Amino acid sequence: MSALRRGLLAPQSLAIVGASDDPSKTTGRPLAYLRKAGWAGRIYPVNPRRETVQGERAWPSVAALPEVPDHALILTPTEIVHQSVADCAAAGVAVASVLATGFAEAGPSGLSRQAELVKIAQAGGLRLLGPSSLGYADPRHGLILTANAAFAEPGPTDGRIFAASHSGSLIGALASRGAAKGLGFAGLVSVGTEADVSLGEICLAALEDPGIETFILFLESLRHAGDLRRFALAADQAGKPVVAYKLGRSPQAAEMAQSHTGALAGENVVADAFFHACGIIRVETLEGLLEAPALARRLLSVPPRRARPTVGLVGTTGGGQAMVVDQLGVRGIEVRAPEPETWGRLAAAQVEAVPGRVVDLTLAGARYEVMKAALDVMTTAPEFDLVVAVAGSSARHHPELAVKPAADSANGAGAPLAMFITVEAPEALSLLARAGVPAFRTPESCADAIAAVLRRRPPKAWDGVESPPAGDGLFLDEAAAYGRLAVLGFPVAPYEALAAGAAPSGRLAYPVAVKALSADLPHKTEAGALVLGVTDTAGVREALATLTANVAQARPDVAVDRYLVQSMVGGLGEVLVGFRRDPDAGPIVMLAPGGVLAELSGERSLRLAPVSFEEAREMIDELPSMKALAGYRNRPGGDLDQRAQAIAVLSTLAADPTILEAEVNPLIVRRAGEGVVAVDALVRVRGVAA
Amino acid sequence: MSALRRGLLAPQSLAIVGASDDPSKTTGRPLAYLRKAGWAGRIYPVNPRRETVQGERAWPSVAALPEVPDHALILTPTEIVHQSVADCAAAGVAVASVLATGFAEAGPSGLSRQAELVKIAQAGGLRLLGPSSLGYADPRHGLILTANAAFAEPGPTDGRIFAASHSGSLIGALASRGAAKGLGFAGLVSVGTEADVSLGEICLAALEDPGIETFILFLESLRHAGDLRRFALAADQAGKPVVAYKLGRSPQAAEMAQSHTGALAGENVVADAFFHACGIIRVETLEGLLEAPALARRLLSVPPRRARPTVGLVGTTGGGQAMVVDQLGVRGIEVRAPEPETWGRLAAAQVEAVPGRVVDLTLAGARYEVMKAALDVMTTAPEFDLVVAVAGSSARHHPELAVKPAADSANGAGAPLAMFITVEAPEALSLLARAGVPAFRTPESCADAIAAVLRRRPPKAWDGVESPPAGDGLFLDEAAAYGRLAVLGFPVAPYEALAAGAAPSGRLAYPVAVKALSADLPHKTEAGALVLGVTDTAGVREALATLTANVAQARPDVAVDRYLVQSMVGGLGEVLVGFRRDPDAGPIVMLAPGGVLAELSGERSLRLAPVSFEEAREMIDELPSMKALAGYRNRPGGDLDQRAQAIAVLSTLAADPTILEAEVNPLIVRRAGEGVVAVDALVRVRGVAA
Repeated sequence: MSALRRGLLAPQSLAIVGASDDPSKTTGRPLAYLRKAGWAGRIYPVNPRRETVQGERAWPSVAALPEVPDHALILTPTEIVHQSVADCAAAGVAVASVLATGFAEAGPSGLSRQAELVKIAQAGGLRLLGPSSLGYADPRHGLILTANAAFAEPGPTDGRIFAASHSGSLIGALASRGAAKGLGFAGLVSVGTEADVSLGEICLAALEDPGIETFILFLESLRHAGDLRRFALAADQAGKPVVAYKLGRSPQAAEMAQSHTGALAGENVVADAFFHACGIIRVETLEGLLEAPALARRLLSVPPRRARPTVGLVGTTGGGQAMVVDQLGVRGIEVRAPEPETWGRLAAAQVEAVPGRVVDLTLAGARYEVMKAALDVMTTAPEFDLVVAVAGSSARHHPELAVKPAADSANGAGAPLAMFITVEAPEALSLLARAGVPAFRTPESCADAIAAVLRRRPPKAWDGVESPPAGDGLFLDEAAAYGRLAVLGFPVAPYEALAAGAAPSGRLAYPVAVKALSADLPHKTEAGALVLGVTDTAGVREALATLTANVAQARPDVAVDRYLVQSMVGGLGEVLVGFRRDPDAGPIVMLAPGGVLAELSGERSLRLAPVSFEEAREMIDELPSMKALAGYRNRPGGDLDQRAQAIAVLSTLAADPTILEAEVNPLIVRRAGEGVVAVDALVRVRGVAA
Repeated sequence: MSALRRGLLAPQSLAIVGASDDPSKTTGRPLAYLRKAGWAGRIYPVNPRRETVQGERAWPSVAALPEVPDHALILTPTEIVHQSVADCAAAGVAVASVLATGFAEAGPSGLSRQAELVKIAQAGGLRLLGPSSLGYADPRHGLILTANAAFAEPGPTDGRIFAASHSGSLIGALASRGAAKGLGFAGLVSVGTEADVSLGEICLAALEDPGIETFILFLESLRHAGDLRRFALAADQAGKPVVAYKLGRSPQAAEMAQSHTGALAGENVVADAFFHACGIIRVETLEGLLEAPALARRLLSVPPRRARPTVGLVGTTGGGQAMVVDQLGVRGIEVRAPEPETWGRLAAAQVEAVPGRVVDLTLAGARYEVMKAALDVMTTAPEFDLVVAVAGSSARHHPELAVKPAADSANGAGAPLAMFITVEAPEALSLLARAGVPAFRTPESCADAIAAVLRRRPPKAWDGVESPPAGDGLFLDEAAAYGRLAVLGFPVAPYEALAAGAAPSGRLAYPVAVKALSADLPHKTEAGALVLGVTDTAGVREALATLTANVAQARPDVAVDRYLVQSMVGGLGEVLVGFRRDPDAGPIVMLAPGGVLAELSGERSLRLAPVSFEEAREMIDELPSMKALAGYRNRPGGDLDQRAQAIAVLSTLAADPTILEAEVNPLIVRRAGEGVVAVDALVRVRGVAA
């Protein structure tokens, strides 16, 4: 058993430092909750100002305890928490959690307070959960080590979900919402600011527990992304799905997460790329976070047979089914109509249904034998990778009619089965939860969870190396940048780099672009440092004079002593291909359309490097504007393979730690078979220019 | 009292035709439900095969009843329902509802069955609800006139919401989900296929009931859009908000709605434009449909003071508040930070909060006096048009701490207050519902409802004239189309229309475009019927020869005996402005970007005609690609006013019933002050070409 598991997830003894006598107070709740839930371990309330706490013997200090507790829950106020941590460390406690706030989330002074706290703990060999942690709860064992008020009633004791949250409040939200659906938890942890122990580390320790089947994460940022990725890869190996809800889809929330936790939230699309690379299923709805795990588990044991998985629908309410079809459609998942053979089998099984895209049994189908027969046919129809059943009003007072058949079909031979219920029907949801059937409360969360789970891919292999802090680095000049690209075999339009006094060799095809060549001019257009469409040698001379004058005006600090002449290459369109190192997620490759309009659209596709050829094709498929380069109407199609190849090649820069950033913009896309070619490039390297 | 209200919404006597003795059967439920709910009116079960039904006297026919019932609920099977309707009509019943299916939703044979049914009813002066109607329920009066199984327990009897649904199942979903939130209904109606009585007519009749405060609609299509619009305008006059959830956001669901109900679903964006013109609030989530009405009511009585309303957030959970900020941000609603004065007032009121975009009271703020003081300050801060409070875990077992303060602030002097609760907390939701505080169960439905309500505008004035069926109509040639536009004062690039043998006058500035002029060539590019960039008279002759040859090849049926020469006008960009008559929604004006890329993006903004100058400005603001014409970076800005003017002018075509469709594509946008100009136009007119 790992130290973290022993010290946090499965302790045998606990000190509650700063326990209050009043069970309704925040600092009184953990003891009251532990006793109410009947935890079997040994509890030592520590309170130097009282003989007893809530009727139990209180100890004056951690040092005075008859044993070194496995865990210390530190509830003391911010002002004295350093002393409490020092006491625990001195007593040889291995893991402590800290409730107090006023650290990383409270600005620079809080950050330095936090650094000091961690220093004290580390000096004493103590691992810290928090600060700002609302603690931990394992309802299975009555280990309610939290002040979260929702745990006054800890919920089902047979749970198999482990929840980890950046927000302490949310563990209460997840536990109570789960209970209302009949879903229980094997553990819920509030990780606070992760000053020491990270969310990923805790989840990795929880992976040791065979009673845990799935993980759900509520994230405000990607801090400690390396730990998270290590955990995700191990979870994948163990066959345990990980589902995440992450804040920061809007810029406002990203900014707020930063102020709330002291961590940079990063860009939403970077988080998407990171989760994708980790095999973490990202949902967009809070309910979906609770509902997706059961579905993910089912689809892991019976994986889709198709690259674009198919969904079949059957139900007793046309309106309810239409809502699911609509919401799936909005998320790009198509509901497939049954094949004629399936309709035939339904008819043979005495199932009457309105023909169409879904199997609508109507009100008349709200009978056990009808729904059961329909589900037996649908789940064994080879055309479906997932079957969604929809139950209507009968589910509320008569779950035995249309819901029990789904529960009874939970582990059938065929495709996985999930169910959406249109009415408020807690009993029916619990019935399904007990049977292990993924059940959905709203059409939105149903479609959200299905789309997220079906889009999940196994994690990318990872060498475990985290990006070191990037620093500012230095730009290379354009010729040097091309040099770096050429090493990779990246196609570049023919060019010559020349001293200001030299004339072009004459080997380049005209027209050409003439550009100032300087590492100090990464943004040439803004400085007037390039002239396009130059048609002869005299033009080159003239262009050089023009741009030299422009630069003298715009950037008097830069001398144009070298220049670059490059053949202009026409094509069907332009794209941007970029590489950079995200401080959280690591090396990132980006594809975006070229041009101003496209920049305004904000369209882009990101992946963690390295990117395979197949992944690069997926990236191209993700961007609507790329359709214009795919032979739209009667226009010729652009070179798709070479575009994908260029993305994959650029992503190999990740292996060179000296490269911080690279951007080819534009990359000219020519007709299929003619390839692609860079006509500008920017490369930023660590330390000094090569 | 209208006949429809008396005959459906407030009957005193009922016949239940085809009532079953078995209360668990679909045809047995209405009688059982009515008795259980204690409805005070007179009920006549009609069943020729039985002496009694569920212990009550059964009547052999409607004709045999001792009085003409106000309403007949017809539960007989599809095969004999025509006879039942004929019997009711013969007996002088004013309104009947029909449960049987197999009509408009069952294809052509069903449609003709339906037409016959309506004919029988109309001949006898009988109005029909349905067929395929699951009936009506008014839980206030125990009038549970439905077979929907969710009404075995009809819910709160003090409801003030009226629900109308195309889906019969959904009335059960809405009633039960509402009850779980403490929301009751004054009426719920399943309108079936609306063969006779439409949803809009019923809602209009329900407007007579002073006990109804808000309306919610579950729609599969926009059929009977005129009735719906009449109702929406009357509801606006009465100050009663209307909230709608409409299927058909995805093409699949649109297709399904069509097959399910026999009605064309139409385009999603047309529905948006229609709702906007009607002042109907369209939500995107099912929960939002239930949660938005209370918010809409509050914001109707205390309307926002700003064109872009501001939202302030306060709560006891940072994570919960961040979810709301995030979801609002995704929907374009920004949460505003309190002004320094407000922070000062909070501090003066002893409210401790973490400074930032929201007022985070943290766990420590889950106390009545803290939350109450914070809400008093926030709702009276002049910078907010709406205040959203967020409660966390304490709300589950202790709503008196952080939820009751909101209930007690429901009708304060200041800005409207709404609340999102992160935990499962049915008691807290009911407490808020009773107090009239809009309460939200998920961050997604919270943001959905807020965004939808804040975007609501008062309905457009309407003359009540519905578009007649459009028919195919005929295209005008380009010169005739310009003629129609010129009458409106729409700017067109200088042109001359010439016979094939004639030469241009020489008054047009070169370069010009040369185009074949024929009503039979609405799509000139495809037929090779235009040549661009012609620089002189000789070139015009040559171009005419070229395009004549092209047309001879592509469209041998069309003779090019006239042509059009038009000065080419350069500009900053192109847009498309269009007008057409939607069979459901009426006259529609569209703005879209020009060019292929933009077409691929699917970007467009629609409004019902007529469109004011201000509305046209809003349309331009809605399209991201229009930013490129707004002076992006150092580029000059396009003429915004003239673009808006052009949209408004084109929309006046709606007043000319002979015009079926008009499209200006492209409309060249020039620099600010230089105007806009049409360089191609297509007009389709009713009947014969003018």
